[in-house]
Amino acid sequence: MQRYFINEPVPEDQRLVLPKDIAHHLVDVLRAEQNDELEVALNDQKVYLARLISLNPATIELQSDLGTDAELPVEVILACGLPKTKEKPELIVQKATEMGASRIVFFAAQRSISRWNPQKQAKKIERLQKIANAAAEQSHRNRQPEVVYGGKLSDVLKNEPADFKIVAWEESAKQGEEANLAKTLKQLQPGQKLLAVFGPEGGLSAAEVDQMKEQGVVPAGLGPRILRTETAPLYLLAAVSYQLELAR
Amino acid sequence: MQRYFINEPVPEDQRLVLPKDIAHHLVDVLRAEQNDELEVALNDQKVYLARLISLNPATIELQSDLGTDAELPVEVILACGLPKTKEKPELIVQKATEMGASRIVFFAAQRSISRWNPQKQAKKIERLQKIANAAAEQSHRNRQPEVVYGGKLSDVLKNEPADFKIVAWEESAKQGEEANLAKTLKQLQPGQKLLAVFGPEGGLSAAEVDQMKEQGVVPAGLGPRILRTETAPLYLLAAVSYQLELAR
Repeated sequence: MQRYFINEPVPEDQRLVLPKDIAHHLVDVLRAEQNDELEVALNDQKVYLARLISLNPATIELQSDLGTDAELPVEVILACGLPKTKEKPELIVQKATEMGASRIVFFAAQRSISRWNPQKQAKKIERLQKIANAAAEQSHRNRQPEVVYGGKLSDVLKNEPADFKIVAWEESAKQGEEANLAKTLKQLQPGQKLLAVFGPEGGLSAAEVDQMKEQGVVPAGLGPRILRTETAPLYLLAAVSYQLELAR
Repeated sequence: MQRYFINEPVPEDQRLVLPKDIAHHLVDVLRAEQNDELEVALNDQKVYLARLISLNPATIELQSDLGTDAELPVEVILACGLPKTKEKPELIVQKATEMGASRIVFFAAQRSISRWNPQKQAKKIERLQKIANAAAEQSHRNRQPEVVYGGKLSDVLKNEPADFKIVAWEESAKQGEEANLAKTLKQLQPGQKLLAVFGPEGGLSAAEVDQMKEQGVVPAGLGPRILRTETAPLYLLAAVSYQLELAR
């Protein structure tokens, strides 16, 4: 059944006029008819069965809460140093959405070769948010993660509060640091926030790692293999899901 | 330092004439000179420090075993239903190599839309093997995973023996099956083999799943979100690494 995300609360009378783009997709593209059923995820992160009760304007009436929950029990915020190519942020956003990220922040790391100037930022983020929204639908998420541009690392650390903060650091892998990720994930309680920072292709600078350590961000190895900048966030999300959803 | 994989045993006299493609890359492309050092991974899956002792023919002498091991403690064989696009097998091979897969088998699932005819197979596999080899170097693996075309699912089940066999089944996620993956991974002992089967975009057919269950392949959910065909193997590998390398 078709599922749409609508960033609205549950209406008091259970009726909702569909936003224009969704109405267009449902009525003009899919040719839905009166009384057809659909699923809508509202901003309470619940998924409802709904019925199309009129076509013009396209209006739905909620039938029941489907009670499905595909969200991770914790919020994972990824902070990714801007990669070099256009494809890598897209891959990160699509796959991280499938794997349950709640928020994806790109930042200009010291060794980021690519820079998003202020004019470009809005367009880039808009495109990435669309990819996230499509992936959220496809993976049956209850919510769409937010994709944002976070500026510098210091801004990210200031603006993204979290209960636990880790940084995936290449040197951790080389030095065989193996304990911190599991230690952190085993402490995480439902509803808490984890911020995970990843460097761009060239890695994080020693200054950036020092800056993070001073602020209590814990360096955590993701196993002994060197993962690319777009692979490491996916490893992290799978580990969070495995530890909190499957292995408990 | 430059690292090469050479599919040869350790020579008795510690000296090795480099294969032509490696000699060309080292001497003609990188312009290495006599006495330059390099790293070579031999077929004993160890990485050696070596010295270039002559240029024509390009010959190295092993200096010492570097003692580095970036391999998973178990062998993970991925069996992936052929995806529709050319890009997805490439993505699977590159990322699965980074994450430690020991062998990647593509097979013609009932719902695979793409088919590799016998003429195409060799070329496709050759290209994918090159991607695996490059990813193995980049991720500092001790070995290159083998990429093969496995024919039909029944052939794969016959030709790929393993201590544990699981299938990532979309219905497992929908039915909330959460225990089997962790149960399997916690039983895996170092040196054992895990075969993990993944469907193509359209999923596995009920007949395929039944066929596997009859042969003792365990359906295992990978969390409550629906993962794309190219994402599920990466989740699995990260979970294996997390459970066996970090959380133990």
